[in-house]
Amino acid sequence: MNYPNGRKTAIAAEENTSDKLKVSASNRGMSLEDDINKTNIRYLKEDLAVVHKKPTPITIVKVDYPKRSAARIIEAYFKLPSTTDYNGIYKGRYLDFEAKECRSRTAFPLKSIHEHQIEHLRSVVRHGAIAFLIMRMSYYSVDYLIKAEDVIDYYDHTSRHSIAIGWIKEHGYPIDFKLTKPVDYLSVVDKIYKF
Amino acid sequence: MNYPNGRKTAIAAEENTSDKLKVSASNRGMSLEDDINKTNIRYLKEDLAVVHKKPTPITIVKVDYPKRSAARIIEAYFKLPSTTDYNGIYKGRYLDFEAKECRSRTAFPLKSIHEHQIEHLRSVVRHGAIAFLIMRMSYYSVDYLIKAEDVIDYYDHTSRHSIAIGWIKEHGYPIDFKLTKPVDYLSVVDKIYKF
Repeated sequence: MNYPNGRKTAIAAEENTSDKLKVSASNRGMSLEDDINKTNIRYLKEDLAVVHKKPTPITIVKVDYPKRSAARIIEAYFKLPSTTDYNGIYKGRYLDFEAKECRSRTAFPLKSIHEHQIEHLRSVVRHGAIAFLIMRMSYYSVDYLIKAEDVIDYYDHTSRHSIAIGWIKEHGYPIDFKLTKPVDYLSVVDKIYKF
Repeated sequence: MNYPNGRKTAIAAEENTSDKLKVSASNRGMSLEDDINKTNIRYLKEDLAVVHKKPTPITIVKVDYPKRSAARIIEAYFKLPSTTDYNGIYKGRYLDFEAKECRSRTAFPLKSIHEHQIEHLRSVVRHGAIAFLIMRMSYYSVDYLIKAEDVIDYYDHTSRHSIAIGWIKEHGYPIDFKLTKPVDYLSVVDKIYKF
């Protein structure tokens, strides 16, 4: 297949990955994942960065191949992710992050971040990545960027099962909401990392 | 969950993603994907690089939630990938590649690389990535690394539907087979890219 304009095609395919974008009348009330996807598509359009969400990892057990139609997966299971959900490239640097929503007013339960994901963040930081956590505090309607280094440090030195909201406010950087970029995390990255 | 040694746990999880590794008696005859996974696990163990295969993108339509057991996907379809299959970080640089097997003796059909993947490679190269194609020529039992820049240049200036084996031999760099690293692409990366 040859399309006249490849880049637009790639962006269109990306947009198709989240059907919810089309039916939502307002940007408010969308999930953090939708908002980050929308932001990433915008970054791609503006040629600012190339960041994608990784597909959900699943184990496929049984596939049906009906005549004249597409292969259909009829038995599969969700698998624990061994990495974070998002990665890509920005200003020549490798970027890696995980996104989490916290509905509690007081604390974020640590069990929401898998051990594998902490270890993955530890590895990529050691190799020179810009790595962080994006946390949406739904109750307060605010998104924070927290450096992976800080999350790992907390993780390594606590015996608690959660992160108190006070700690998050102290170590997190609030992320601006913009209509075209609902989670404009790169403007925070520009401020807190050296290039 | 807190494990005494996080890194080993993360690697164990990664190893579990490819069950074929365990049942195969010999390294020969394994698929290119298996060989690259094995190589990436080794890189991870040696703390040389952090590179993972992205999960296969699928659209989930129906999920069954049986009592007391794991959620079961009972209807899903394969989706066209909008990016390449592999990315990660090496010596601080963003690494991105696609892997393809070619069974033909004479040429590699261009339709095996999706337009979206070419456009993705074009984007990441523009942003400073180390990006390439790993091509296994099964008939000749040899793996080549071909720079994304060369693949894109060929793609942009050809009206043909395939890449002749002569072109691949001329532009590709043969990748060594090692028992512990069946597709040791980083040793080629070290030779042909500047750090």
